[in-house]
Amino acid sequence: MTDYVAPLRDIEFVLTELVDLTEVAALPGFEEATPDLVSAVLEEAAKVAQQVLAPLNQTGDRQGAQWNDGVVTTAEGWIDAYRTFIEGGWNSLAFDPEFGGQGLPWLVSTAVQEMWHASNMAFSLCPMLTQGAVEAIQDHGSEELKARFLPKMVSGEWTGTMNLTEPQAGSDLSAVRTKAVPENDYYRLFGQKIFITYGDHDLTENIVHLVLARLPDAPEGVKGISLFVVPKFNVVADGALGERNDVRCVSIEHKLGIHASPTCVLSFGDSDGAVGYLVGDANRGLEYMFTMMNLARHAVGLEGLAIGERAYQQAREYAKERVQGRPIGAAERMPIVHHPDVRRMLMTMKSQVEAMRALAYFWAAWFDKASHNSDDTKRFEQLRVVELLTPVVKGWCTEVGNDVASLGVQVHGGMGYIEETGAAQHFRDARVTTIYEGTTGIQANDLVGRKLLRDGGKAACLMIEQMQATVAELDQDSPLTAGLQNGVTDLRAATEWILEVAEGDPRLPAAAAVYYMHLWGVVAGGWLMAQAAQVAQRRLKQGEGDSGFYIAKIQTARYYADHILSRSVSLRQAIVNGSESIMAVDVEHL
Amino acid sequence: MTDYVAPLRDIEFVLTELVDLTEVAALPGFEEATPDLVSAVLEEAAKVAQQVLAPLNQTGDRQGAQWNDGVVTTAEGWIDAYRTFIEGGWNSLAFDPEFGGQGLPWLVSTAVQEMWHASNMAFSLCPMLTQGAVEAIQDHGSEELKARFLPKMVSGEWTGTMNLTEPQAGSDLSAVRTKAVPENDYYRLFGQKIFITYGDHDLTENIVHLVLARLPDAPEGVKGISLFVVPKFNVVADGALGERNDVRCVSIEHKLGIHASPTCVLSFGDSDGAVGYLVGDANRGLEYMFTMMNLARHAVGLEGLAIGERAYQQAREYAKERVQGRPIGAAERMPIVHHPDVRRMLMTMKSQVEAMRALAYFWAAWFDKASHNSDDTKRFEQLRVVELLTPVVKGWCTEVGNDVASLGVQVHGGMGYIEETGAAQHFRDARVTTIYEGTTGIQANDLVGRKLLRDGGKAACLMIEQMQATVAELDQDSPLTAGLQNGVTDLRAATEWILEVAEGDPRLPAAAAVYYMHLWGVVAGGWLMAQAAQVAQRRLKQGEGDSGFYIAKIQTARYYADHILSRSVSLRQAIVNGSESIMAVDVEHL
Repeated sequence: MTDYVAPLRDIEFVLTELVDLTEVAALPGFEEATPDLVSAVLEEAAKVAQQVLAPLNQTGDRQGAQWNDGVVTTAEGWIDAYRTFIEGGWNSLAFDPEFGGQGLPWLVSTAVQEMWHASNMAFSLCPMLTQGAVEAIQDHGSEELKARFLPKMVSGEWTGTMNLTEPQAGSDLSAVRTKAVPENDYYRLFGQKIFITYGDHDLTENIVHLVLARLPDAPEGVKGISLFVVPKFNVVADGALGERNDVRCVSIEHKLGIHASPTCVLSFGDSDGAVGYLVGDANRGLEYMFTMMNLARHAVGLEGLAIGERAYQQAREYAKERVQGRPIGAAERMPIVHHPDVRRMLMTMKSQVEAMRALAYFWAAWFDKASHNSDDTKRFEQLRVVELLTPVVKGWCTEVGNDVASLGVQVHGGMGYIEETGAAQHFRDARVTTIYEGTTGIQANDLVGRKLLRDGGKAACLMIEQMQATVAELDQDSPLTAGLQNGVTDLRAATEWILEVAEGDPRLPAAAAVYYMHLWGVVAGGWLMAQAAQVAQRRLKQGEGDSGFYIAKIQTARYYADHILSRSVSLRQAIVNGSESIMAVDVEHL
Repeated sequence: MTDYVAPLRDIEFVLTELVDLTEVAALPGFEEATPDLVSAVLEEAAKVAQQVLAPLNQTGDRQGAQWNDGVVTTAEGWIDAYRTFIEGGWNSLAFDPEFGGQGLPWLVSTAVQEMWHASNMAFSLCPMLTQGAVEAIQDHGSEELKARFLPKMVSGEWTGTMNLTEPQAGSDLSAVRTKAVPENDYYRLFGQKIFITYGDHDLTENIVHLVLARLPDAPEGVKGISLFVVPKFNVVADGALGERNDVRCVSIEHKLGIHASPTCVLSFGDSDGAVGYLVGDANRGLEYMFTMMNLARHAVGLEGLAIGERAYQQAREYAKERVQGRPIGAAERMPIVHHPDVRRMLMTMKSQVEAMRALAYFWAAWFDKASHNSDDTKRFEQLRVVELLTPVVKGWCTEVGNDVASLGVQVHGGMGYIEETGAAQHFRDARVTTIYEGTTGIQANDLVGRKLLRDGGKAACLMIEQMQATVAELDQDSPLTAGLQNGVTDLRAATEWILEVAEGDPRLPAAAAVYYMHLWGVVAGGWLMAQAAQVAQRRLKQGEGDSGFYIAKIQTARYYADHILSRSVSLRQAIVNGSESIMAVDVEHL
C-alpha cells in the first residue's frame, strides 16, 4: 500500500480560494480561526494522518477487530493511535468550548476529517460516531446529562455509539421494538440492536450508547420512539465509573471491508435491564435523530471523497512506476501513466475527487454560515441550501467514491486484485458508504421528497440560479462553459419535470430520485469546478507563482466538463422518459 | 446465499427464439444438436449446476485453496464435484469428436457454461482454462502432441493451464523472459510465471501447462515468443505418467475474490529445467495465443453475465422477502420489491442481464456459423462480425457484471455488506473479470485498433446497418423504437468520428476506446432487446400461452431503452468532445 500524503495544497485551495474560509472565520464565534491557526491545524493533522493512522490501515484490515466472550479487542497499534489522537485534542476540534471543545468552524473540521478517513477509515469511524453522540446529548439532553457525559466524550476519553437498527428495523425505524421501562429517575432497556459501529472496544474505559427505544405506553410507529443514553459503565454523581451496565456485545460481523471497525450486535437487558437516561422529551427520539442527520450524512459523504483521494494517490503512484507497453508514438516501453486509457482513468478519478472535495467543503462553509450567521433571514436561506445538498453530498460522494476506488483497482491490473497491493481494501472499505447512514435510495428520496417537493423547489431554484449566474460570468466560447450550461439546463428541466408530475403520481419522482441525486452531484460538482477554473485563470493573470498548479486546475475542470458533466443529458432522459417503465413488470415475472 | 436456479426458460428463449439454434444446428457437423438433445443437455447441466456446484460456492470462498510446501489443496467437496463433472461428460461438450469430444455447437456450450459460472465461478475456471489449453494443442500442435495429450484433457482427466504473465510482462507480453533451451526432441524451460489459474491442485493426476517462452536465439519482442507444452508429470510413450517435471508452485495469491480458484506462481526449471514440447513453429507463440483469444474472451464475458444473473437472483429473492417501510400509496409495510428505487435497481440488473445473455449467445451463434458455414464468403463475413464483437462481449459484459453485482449488494442494504449473506462474494468474484484475459482498456483498444480501424469500419458498418434495418421494422410510434434509433445514431456518429480523426492523431481513438466499447455494448444489447420484444409481440399475437412471460419481455426491453440506451448520447459526447482533454494535464500535476 502506498503511503498516504495529505493533499494540503488542494485542501487549502478549496478552503481559501474556492469556498472562502475568511468569510466563515468572520462569523461570530469563529474569531479564533485565523489563517495561520488553520494552516497550523491542517499541517499537524496531516502529520497524525500520515504517521500515526495511515500505517495502521492495512494491518488493521488484515487483523480486524476480534470478539471473544463478549469483549472486543481492536487491532494492533489501535490503542496507542487512539491515545495519540485524543491527546492531540483532535476529538474536540469542532465541539462547543463550554464542554471542552475548540469551537473551530465545521469547514476546518471537514478538512481535518478528510485526512482521518483517507488515512484510516476504519479507525476514524470511532471519533465519527462519538461526534454524533455528542451532538445528540448537546442539542437535546438535560443540563445534568450534559454535565455528566459531555466533557469526557468531547475529549475522547469516552466514545459514543448510535443504536438505531434492529433486525426488522433498518431503513424503516418505525419498526423499532427495543423497550424502555421507567424506574425511579431512569429507565431499564431491553432489546437487541445490530450494526453498532464500535459498539464495544478496548480503546477507552467507557462507551456511551445512544439508543432508540419505546416506552411501554408509546404510540406505534415513528412517533413512539424515544432516545436514551445507556453507558457501558454507569457513571456515579462525581463522574467516576460505577458498575457494569446490563448491555453486552453478543457478536461482531464478518464484513466485506472496514474489518478493523467492530460492527456489533448489542444486547440490552439480558438480566435486570440496562440503565438508561431519557434524552429530551419522550417520543421525540426520531425527531432528534433528524437534527443530527445533516452532519452525520455529510461525514459519510466525506468518506467517499477521502477513500477516493486515497485510491487515486495509490493508482497514480503505481501508474507512474509500472512500465508496460509502448504508448502510441513512443520509442520504448514507458510507465503506464502515458497510455491514454490509463490517463483517462486517472483523470476520471482526479477530477471527481476534486469535485467531491469542492462540494463537501462548500456544504461545510454554508453549514457554518447557517449556524452562525447573525442575520436570521440569510441564516434560514443558507440552512435550506445546506439541507438540500446534504443528501447530495452523502449520496453522490459515496457513489462516486466507490467508482473511483474501483478504477483504482483497475489501474493496477492484475495486481489490483491481490490483497497485498492495498487497492482492493479501498474498494471493499468504500462499499459500505452507500449503505450506512441511509442508503443511496434513502438519500435520493430525502432529496426529492423532503428537500425539493416540500418547499416547491425554492431552495433548488435558488441554487440553479446561482449556477446560471456563474455560466454568465464564464468565457462564452469555452467548451467548459458549454458543458456547464448543458448541465444546468438538464438539471433545471429535470427539476421542473419532477415538480410537475409529483402531484399526479408521487411514485414517479420516487422512481427518478437516484438519477436526480446523481444529476445534482454531477452539475453542482461541475459548477464548483468551473469556479475553480475561474479562480485559477485570475491567479494566472495576476502572474502569481505556482502556475503549473493553476493550469492543471483549468485542465481538470475542462476534463470534468467533457467527461462527467456530459452524463447530465442521459440522466435527464432517464428521469423524464424512464420513470414509468420502472414498476411495469409484474413481481412474479422479475 | 440464495440457491441458484438455472434460468432455463430465459436461456431457451434466447437460444431458440432470438439467436436461432435451428439455423446453427443445420450447419455441417452439428447434426446431432437436435432440439430434444439440446433441451436434455440444458436440463441435466442445470441439475449439476444447482445440486453439485452451487452448494460449494460459499464454502469454497470461505476456505479458499490452500498452499503447503509446493502443493495446492482445493476446498472441501471440490474433488468429488470435479469427478461428477467429468464423469457426466461436461468437460468435452464442444470439443472435437476425434479426441473424445461431443462436437456440440459453441452456442449450446455457451448456455451450459453460463450455468457453471453462475453456480460456482471459482470452480468453473478450471475447465475454462483446460478448454484454452485444448484449443492451443488442437489448433497448433503436432499429431504426436495431440495424441499424447488431448484425449485426457478433453475428458478432463487432466486439466490445462495458460502461462503467459511474468512479473514484468502483464498486458505487454513482448517482455516475456522465460527461456526454452533445446535438448534432444524437447526443450528445457527456465523462468517464473505468475497469475496461473489452477496452476496446481489436487483434482487430477496430471496438469498440462501451456507456456510462453523464448528460444536462445529468438528475436526480441513479440516475434520471439514460442509456445510449449509442459506437463506436471512427464508422459511416457504409452500415455502412462512418468517422472515429476521440474515445475513447482511456489505460492498462491491472497485475492479479493475467487478464493477457491488457486492463482499460482509457477517456477520452471529450479533444478535441471522443465521438459517442454514446442507447439507448432518456433517464434509463433503469440500468434497462436491470438487464435484462441476469441473463445477465451467470450468465456470471460460469459462470467460477467453469469455473476450478474446470480447476483440478480439473490437480490430479487431478498427484495421479495424483506419487509421494510410502507411504499407510497400502500396501507402497510411491504416487501422492499414494491419500493420504486428497489425496483429500479432490480430492473437495471434484470434488463442488463438479459441484454448480456442475448449478446453473448448471439456471438456464439455467429461463431458457430463462422466456423462451420460451407459458404466461404459468408463465413469470412461472419468471422469479421465475431471478431468485432469479441472485445465488446468481454469488455462490456464484465463491466456490466460488476455493476450488477454491486447493485445486488445495494439491494440488500446493510446485510449486503455482511459476508455471510453472499451478495458480497459475487461483488468480489466479479471484480477480476474486467482485469484478466485482457483488461477493459485492452479490449477497447482491440475493438478500435484492430477491429474498427484495420478494416476501415467495414464490419462495424455492416452491424450498424443491420441495427438500422431492425429499427425500420419496429413500431415507429413506440418509445422503444425511438430509444434504439437514438442509440444507433450515436453509435454511427461515434464510429464516423473515430474513423475520421484516427489518421490525424492515433491517440484520440485510443483515448475514446473504452467509451466506444461501452457504446457498442449498450446499443448492440438494445438492438437484441428490441428483437426480443418483436418476437414476444409476435407470440402474443399468435395467442401462444405463457403470455405473462412475453409481456415481461416487452416491458423489460422498454425499460432497457429508457434507462440503458439513454446512456448512448453521453458516451457519444465523451468520445467526440472528451478525447483531447485526457492527456492535457502534466504528469507532475496529476
